[in-house]
This record gives sequence, C-alpha cells and structure tokens, in this order.
Amino acid sequence: MPILVMKFGGTSVATLDRIRRAAKRVGREVANGYDVIVIVSAMAGETNKLVGFVEETSPLYDAREYDAVVSAGENVTAGLMALTLQEMDVPARSWQGWQVPLKTTSAHAAARIEEIPPANILKKFDEGMKVAVVAGFQGISPEGRITTLGRGGSDTTAVAFAAAFEAERCDIYTDVDGVYTTDPRITSKARKLDRIAFEEMLELASLGAKVLQTRSVELAMRYNVKLRVLSSFEEMSDDAGTLVCAEEDIVESNVVAGVAFSRDEAKMTLQGIEDRPGIAAAIFGPLAEAGVNVDMIVQNISDGGTTDMTFSCPVNEVKRAEKAMAEAKAAGLIDFAGLVADTDVCKVSIVGIGMRSHAGVAAKMFQTLRDEGINIKVITTSEIKVSVLVDRKYLELAVQALHDAFGLDKAA
Amino acid sequence: MPILVMKFGGTSVATLDRIRRAAKRVGREVANGYDVIVIVSAMAGETNKLVGFVEETSPLYDAREYDAVVSAGENVTAGLMALTLQEMDVPARSWQGWQVPLKTTSAHAAARIEEIPPANILKKFDEGMKVAVVAGFQGISPEGRITTLGRGGSDTTAVAFAAAFEAERCDIYTDVDGVYTTDPRITSKARKLDRIAFEEMLELASLGAKVLQTRSVELAMRYNVKLRVLSSFEEMSDDAGTLVCAEEDIVESNVVAGVAFSRDEAKMTLQGIEDRPGIAAAIFGPLAEAGVNVDMIVQNISDGGTTDMTFSCPVNEVKRAEKAMAEAKAAGLIDFAGLVADTDVCKVSIVGIGMRSHAGVAAKMFQTLRDEGINIKVITTSEIKVSVLVDRKYLELAVQALHDAFGLDKAA
Repeated sequence: MPILVMKFGGTSVATLDRIRRAAKRVGREVANGYDVIVIVSAMAGETNKLVGFVEETSPLYDAREYDAVVSAGENVTAGLMALTLQEMDVPARSWQGWQVPLKTTSAHAAARIEEIPPANILKKFDEGMKVAVVAGFQGISPEGRITTLGRGGSDTTAVAFAAAFEAERCDIYTDVDGVYTTDPRITSKARKLDRIAFEEMLELASLGAKVLQTRSVELAMRYNVKLRVLSSFEEMSDDAGTLVCAEEDIVESNVVAGVAFSRDEAKMTLQGIEDRPGIAAAIFGPLAEAGVNVDMIVQNISDGGTTDMTFSCPVNEVKRAEKAMAEAKAAGLIDFAGLVADTDVCKVSIVGIGMRSHAGVAAKMFQTLRDEGINIKVITTSEIKVSVLVDRKYLELAVQALHDAFGLDKAA
Repeated sequence: MPILVMKFGGTSVATLDRIRRAAKRVGREVANGYDVIVIVSAMAGETNKLVGFVEETSPLYDAREYDAVVSAGENVTAGLMALTLQEMDVPARSWQGWQVPLKTTSAHAAARIEEIPPANILKKFDEGMKVAVVAGFQGISPEGRITTLGRGGSDTTAVAFAAAFEAERCDIYTDVDGVYTTDPRITSKARKLDRIAFEEMLELASLGAKVLQTRSVELAMRYNVKLRVLSSFEEMSDDAGTLVCAEEDIVESNVVAGVAFSRDEAKMTLQGIEDRPGIAAAIFGPLAEAGVNVDMIVQNISDGGTTDMTFSCPVNEVKRAEKAMAEAKAAGLIDFAGLVADTDVCKVSIVGIGMRSHAGVAAKMFQTLRDEGINIKVITTSEIKVSVLVDRKYLELAVQALHDAFGLDKAA
C-alpha cells in the first residue's frame, strides 16, 4: 500500500469535534487506498499552558524536564485521534515518540531528528492496521529521555516520517488553505498558488511562517518530500491547497512567485567607522552576542579612511543593538562617530526561481517603485530574491504595485 | 543512604504553589539524610478531564488508548516537581513509568504491577541524585504500551516502590491528617490513631477509603512496608499522621481500634425459598452477574422445607437485585414466596485485632446498642470485626455509643 503522511496542527485538533472532522479526512484517505501516518499537535493552547507552568516553576529550567512536561499535550491528542478513528471502524493506534522510536540528538527543547526506524509501524501496517497516529514534536534521546524539537516541531516530524517511510506525499492541514502570492489582507488580488518550489517557499518564509516551519521545508527539500499545505476547515478536493515541491515538478510558473514583506524593520547606520579589515566582525560579533537578528548589511564606499555601515534588524531589537554598540565602543572594540536608527521602515521582497533565467527582474522592480514615487533605502539580492527597505508608510502601495507589475493575479 | 518513598495525591499538587509546598517537605527529608523516591498524582481535576475526553470520544473505548491519554497528567506533575526541587538546589529528575521501567500486566486500565527493577534509579542515586520523581498510576506492558493501574493507582505505585527499594517507610501525603477512630463528623470525640495494624486498616476500608486505597494496604501488608498517612497541609512533625504497620510493631492498643459505618445499605429478604443444597448458589449467582455487591448474608433456621434468606447490599442496587431475582424466578432457577426490601438501614462495625484475644467484645457491643434501645437486624462477624445492620436513623447514636463504650477517645 502507498503511504500518506497527514499532519494536523493545534487549531485542527482544538476540540473533540475538530478531531472528529480531522479523522474523517483520514478515513477518506484510507478509503482511497492509503496506509496513513497521522502526526498530531497538542490541542490549541495546551502546549502554551504547559510552557507557562515550566517557566513559572523554574525560570532557568532544566530542558530535560521542560521536554518531559511539554510533550504531554501531543500524547493526549494522539490517543484521542486513535480512539476517534476506531469509532469510525478504521484500525488505528497511537504512538508516542519513544515508542516509534523517533531518535533525536540530546539537544533538549531543540533536538534534531537522527533516525526513524520504520520497522515497528510497518509491521502493524502488515497486520492490518490502517492508521498510525504519532504524537508530533517529540522524540527520545540516546540517554532514553524525552526530547522535543522546538517550535514548529510537528511539521518537521511529519516531513521526517514522510522521508523515512518514502510516503507519496505529506499533507499539512492548517487554518489557511494554502500559500498565496502575497498576504490577501494587503491586496484582494492575492492568488493561491497551486504549486511552489521548495526554494521559493524558503524565501517566502515571512509569508509562510504562519503556514510552514522553515526547518520542515528544508528537510522536505533535502529528501524531496512532496509537501501539501491545505486547510482542515474547507471541503476536500484533489487539487486543494498548495503543493510545495521540487522545481522540476512545476511545469509552468511566473518569473516571480510571490511578494513577501516584513513590516516592523529598522535601519541602523554606524557613521564614521574605521575602514579596516576585521571591522565587520568587530561590529556584528557583539550584535549577535546580544541576540540582535541582523538581516540586510550594506557597507558604503570608503571615504578617506572612515566609512558608514548600515544594517537592518527587527524594530523591537533596536534598543538592544544600541546598547551592544555603546558597550563595544566603551570597551574600545570599535569606534564610530554616530549611530542613527530609522525605525519607520519595512522590507518588501519579490521571490521566484524564474529570476535565475530571466534578466531585468530587479530593474523592473526598481522602476515599478520609482513610478510610485517610493524611495529605496537599502537593496539586497539573492539568486531568487530581491529585497528592498522602504518607508513603512509605502508597504501596501509597494506590495500592490509589485503584485500588479509581475502579473501575480494571473496563473502562468 | 536509607530510602524514603513519599507520595503526593492530586490535591497536594493541585497548583504550582502546592507543588512547592510538597517539594519543601521532600527537601527536608533529603536534609534528614534520605534518598527519596517521590510518587506524584496528576494535578487535581486533570485525570477527570482526560477521562471525560476519552468517554466522550468513544463510549466503548480501547483501554490501551485510554491509558495512553489518561497517563499524561502524572507526566506533567513529575516534571514540574523535579524542576521545583532543582530550583531548591536538590538534585532531582523525573521518571515516567516506561523509563523506570515499572512493568505491569497487559490488563489495560486495571493493570497489576509485575516488577520494578531498581537498577536505573539506584545508579542515579549513586551518581548523586537525591530525588527520583516518578509519575504514579502508570507502567508499561510486555508489549511496550502504556498501562494504568486503575483508581488509587498512585498509592499502589508508592507501596510497590517502597517494597522494591526496601524503603524505610512509605509516606502518603493527602488532605486528611491520618486515620481516625471514627468519622469526626459523627462525634467530636473521634481521635487520630498514631498506629493501626494492616488488618485493621483493611477492615476500616469504609473509613479509610478516602485515605488509602485497599489494594495499596494489601500490598503493604504482604511486603511489610511501613505506611504513614499524613496531611500535606499541616506542619511537619516526626509523629504526624498515622502509621499503618504490622501488628507486632504496635506495642499498646485498644481492643477495638475504630468504629466504621456505611450509611446507605439495604436489607433484602427472600421469603419462603426451598431449603435445599445449592439454593445459595442459585440466588447469589444471578445477583453477582447483575453486578449487585452483596455484603452480609444470613440464612434463617429452616421451617419445614422452606426458609428465608436475608442479605444486604448498597441501597442503589436494590432495583437491580429485584430484577435479577424476578428473572431467576421466571427462568425457573429459584422459587420464593416474596421479596422484602428494607432500604432504611445502615451498617455499623467495630474493628480491632485485640478482639482475637479478648472475649466478650461482641456481647459488649450488643449490650451497648440494647441500652440505647437500638434493635439489631442482622449480625456478621469476622476474627477482628463485628458488624450489625440497624435502622439508619440510629447511625449517629450507635457510632457515638460504641465509641464511648470501647473508650476510643482515649489512647491505650
């Protein structure tokens, strides 16, 4: 029998009624001829409650005990899903991470999956079981202790199972019905994509964050697991959702797949720093230590021994960045004339694997923004992405103009 | 190091504050020089919530999935207790049933403990760990699935650990401060017992039900585990609570240890049944099948071929008993002239190992009741117990009179 992996997130199993709805979808895939591995999250809110208990008990908690506590929610859902399937006469049983066993590293609270031996579950499929319900987000360390995989861990569990069992597909059921060309709240012309390449999905992380965890997409790309994102709240159909897949599985596509954005960015400029080897390390070392997530970096042309360095980071990390720079200056690690923070900017990006083979995409983007009178403050590019920082007030205008200019409202 | 087992019930770990209070008691025993094994229940209400989920999902549930779901609550408390102890600088870690491993039969939802290999936990004690926090109520079956031990399972877990680790004592922390000579709500003269014998504790089940699970007392008696019942809400002292122990560990004791009672009893009399071999089986077989918990049984003197049979059962099982008897008559299994139910009776018992060596205890009981004008309807006796059925309106009077007559307000 071909194997299908289906993953249901917290909102999709938030109540017994929703578990029943999810189980019906599973039952339909069994009727379609699949042996199904179902990965479940905890009921919405449960994991946060348990994390709250741990943090209140012990601010600097032992991550091993954190894992033992917060993994409880998924165990409950796995058992309830198995019982619901049994009520529908679908042979099913639950598996906790250690029972599979899903072997991980010992990096508690952020463990990485090492191995998923398929033998135990395959044996049960051979004996007539149709559905293995697996508690997501958890595994077992070499020391025999419970581990968890960190945020979005259930998506990663699902993709890892799909890879280990060579599943035909990995369906991620969530509360949105797919991946869009851009956020539909910004423009009503936003269109759901039928297919998107792994690389594009990774670059669209800022759109996809609510949809798929970055790590799960990386894993799917590495093992070429076909990932489908679809809503657990809409009627099923064969072409529902968005398929995240390898480039070669996409026959026709637009040059640009989507327009992504990040609203709360800040642009920081260190003025009058020495232009010497090692200066970048001297600046960004202390920022990384202070937990500042630096995104774009631009170094200006040197002007007689001193230069300016501009970088962007989330707006709520500006204070931390300023403190780190002041301390580095006080400690004599760096010297600069001034630090200017612009906290009213946002980042807008166009993403598409088609850029590789099409010239002039960046130029078209800059021209579109110029035509709207939008000044570009910083530019960075990658092989399949162009990002710009612009004033925050232009965010909607920029996204709408780019969405129109690249014809994203129409399929390729 | 000597080992101490401490068990905290659901109300003793109902909130993070209460877990902290319990952890302080554990810390004090560590300071006293013990290696401690702590057995925890789920936070009060959690297990009931999970049982509710299971029953709503699947009325005739698969007990293996029931166990996987309802064991989650204890896992949470075990982790939180370990974290709380670590915050107090007490080296501690949590253990789930399968990690110990606590091996049980495959009788899911009512499994019996088969073996607790002490090696894993002893190794950690050797390495400097001072407290092993174990999730109560759960174990692992030979098939590698999670099992639970049924109601009161955490008490049983605690006693089994005390036996397996040859612990000096097993302290059961609960919401009452010990075992009383009778229910303090019936007479203010009720006195907390310092010590009570296993056999007495078993007979006082009706008093002790809220305190100790019968199965845990049986297990303690078999392995001669010293059990102490004490409140987690009162100040600690060395002679707190009640020690349940072997007869030979009790130096002085009253002839009668306590007065027990059961309020909602019914007396049923089958009139005019044949007096023939096998008639008792013909009556009590169908009652057992119907789930009627028959307690006392009295067969009257035969009167020319027919006789009366009287038995008692809980008052809410009378309808079921009547139906079973009517059906047995209709099926020709038994014949009787009439069935009379008296639903206004209660059972009062005196219990004490001293009865074995003291004559006249029953006579003193009957005389005491006669002096109060209380008519006795049925009598049964065992080696260490005398029970009578009397009209329910006399319950308080009978208990108070017997408590006085046997001097239970004063220690031996």
